[in-house]
Amino acid sequence: MNSERPAVTVLGLGMMGAALAGAFLAGGHPTTVWNRSAGRGDDLVAQGAVRAAAVGDAVAAGQMIVVCVRDYDAVREILEPVSAALAGRVVVNLTSGTSQEARDLAGWAAGHGIGYLDGAIMMTPQGIGTAEAVILYGGEQELFDESRPVLERLGGGTTYLGPDTGIPALYDVALLDIMWSTLNGFLHAAALVGTEKIPATAFVPFATGWLGGVASFLPPMAEQIDAGEYAAHDATLETHLSPLGHLIHESRIRGVDADAPGRTRAMVERAIADGHAADGYARLIEQMRER
Amino acid sequence: MNSERPAVTVLGLGMMGAALAGAFLAGGHPTTVWNRSAGRGDDLVAQGAVRAAAVGDAVAAGQMIVVCVRDYDAVREILEPVSAALAGRVVVNLTSGTSQEARDLAGWAAGHGIGYLDGAIMMTPQGIGTAEAVILYGGEQELFDESRPVLERLGGGTTYLGPDTGIPALYDVALLDIMWSTLNGFLHAAALVGTEKIPATAFVPFATGWLGGVASFLPPMAEQIDAGEYAAHDATLETHLSPLGHLIHESRIRGVDADAPGRTRAMVERAIADGHAADGYARLIEQMRER
Repeated sequence: MNSERPAVTVLGLGMMGAALAGAFLAGGHPTTVWNRSAGRGDDLVAQGAVRAAAVGDAVAAGQMIVVCVRDYDAVREILEPVSAALAGRVVVNLTSGTSQEARDLAGWAAGHGIGYLDGAIMMTPQGIGTAEAVILYGGEQELFDESRPVLERLGGGTTYLGPDTGIPALYDVALLDIMWSTLNGFLHAAALVGTEKIPATAFVPFATGWLGGVASFLPPMAEQIDAGEYAAHDATLETHLSPLGHLIHESRIRGVDADAPGRTRAMVERAIADGHAADGYARLIEQMRER
Repeated sequence: MNSERPAVTVLGLGMMGAALAGAFLAGGHPTTVWNRSAGRGDDLVAQGAVRAAAVGDAVAAGQMIVVCVRDYDAVREILEPVSAALAGRVVVNLTSGTSQEARDLAGWAAGHGIGYLDGAIMMTPQGIGTAEAVILYGGEQELFDESRPVLERLGGGTTYLGPDTGIPALYDVALLDIMWSTLNGFLHAAALVGTEKIPATAFVPFATGWLGGVASFLPPMAEQIDAGEYAAHDATLETHLSPLGHLIHESRIRGVDADAPGRTRAMVERAIADGHAADGYARLIEQMRER
């Protein structure tokens, strides 16, 4: 980047793309925006953005080209026709996809002399630009270091994961995995207490306080996973069986689907059958790895 | 309770019962302990507890009788023979069980003139007596208010849920429900990133930070559940499908069981088929209620 406020181009003006462009504008960067279908970006233009009519014009205007569109197929359709114009510039692709898609696109970019960083946004559009916004990046270290001052406009949680451009996409789905699991557990729990006419809003302070406690269980579990040693520090797998039985019973008698806790119990039972009754809960990771 | 430091009896000296007795001793209460099988409680006696040889003696020594044993069958086997001695005293039952078991035992106690509170301990034995220890109680309000100063010895999170003695057991399994779901999600995510030789300990700060964000999604979801209105504030159910597909794909190609995310996707797809594509994630609670 060769000036204090390098020029940035944002391709894709969905809710997220518009939020990204807004953060660059707020940071004082000359910002050019482009969207495949017309009719988007009026607010950004009012804030000082330049709207390009053609993607080639948009690319020519920016030193950093930030892409946030529907999927990697769309990224390719947009970027491949302008590969010559992209040479020598930096593409920061924040589109959601798989690790393989990210690595393939990075290979394409390298073949055309285009700098490439792949990123995963762990924040809603509303939170872009705040201290809490976490965005995870992978790509060449030097390229990331040069780009960091600009990328930090997007959030306080600008995080470098290393040179492998496939890793941010993997972290993305791994973290969403935790989110879906946790939300499913919360909805199931809310359904249970709801059978006693307890409002979900009355239950939620218990749930959020408890989640803080659950988070504190993760570091010791991670140490066990890395060591491959699962001796129980407190509750053994055996001691989980009785409360799991209570949960399944409460679900059944209250007309709440008992499938998810039933599957958890089956995992615990398989681990016990494999001789791990005295191990802690982290042992169940082996049930999730195909053997 | 008719003195500043009422005498307490603890029946059951497993890890949790011993921790409870230790907290009463630390609070300066005359504490009598008893365990069905011999050979437990030496440490407590060294700290000043009186060990009773027979359960009748133990009950006679305390104004409050705290019970923490394997299950409700064990509670009944222990208490029923000494029902006459229990009359006029307060039983605080912290044994794990179902809401129906708690209500049935409360009915039995009422029939014998025994005060009864049911509680659920949301803490490990090591955490008993700390400010963070949450214990949830149900039972007659006046009885709880009288008992509260003694119960607060067990933890800073002494919480009254109302007169229904079945509710603490329900909250217990509902919170454990969230715990198991979250831990399953974490283990699955750790298995995924582990396929790239990323240590679980390197991933865990991302997971715990992210869980704080996930916790912030719960209050607005609870409001939607209570209102029965699920219009999306940010991500629609439709927008979850693409990243769910990525998660399932990454799981399959990496040899990690794709069953759990597959079931989540099936729930989302059913909700969309029911016409709820533009709703938020909380709509899935309806998939968990049997129809």
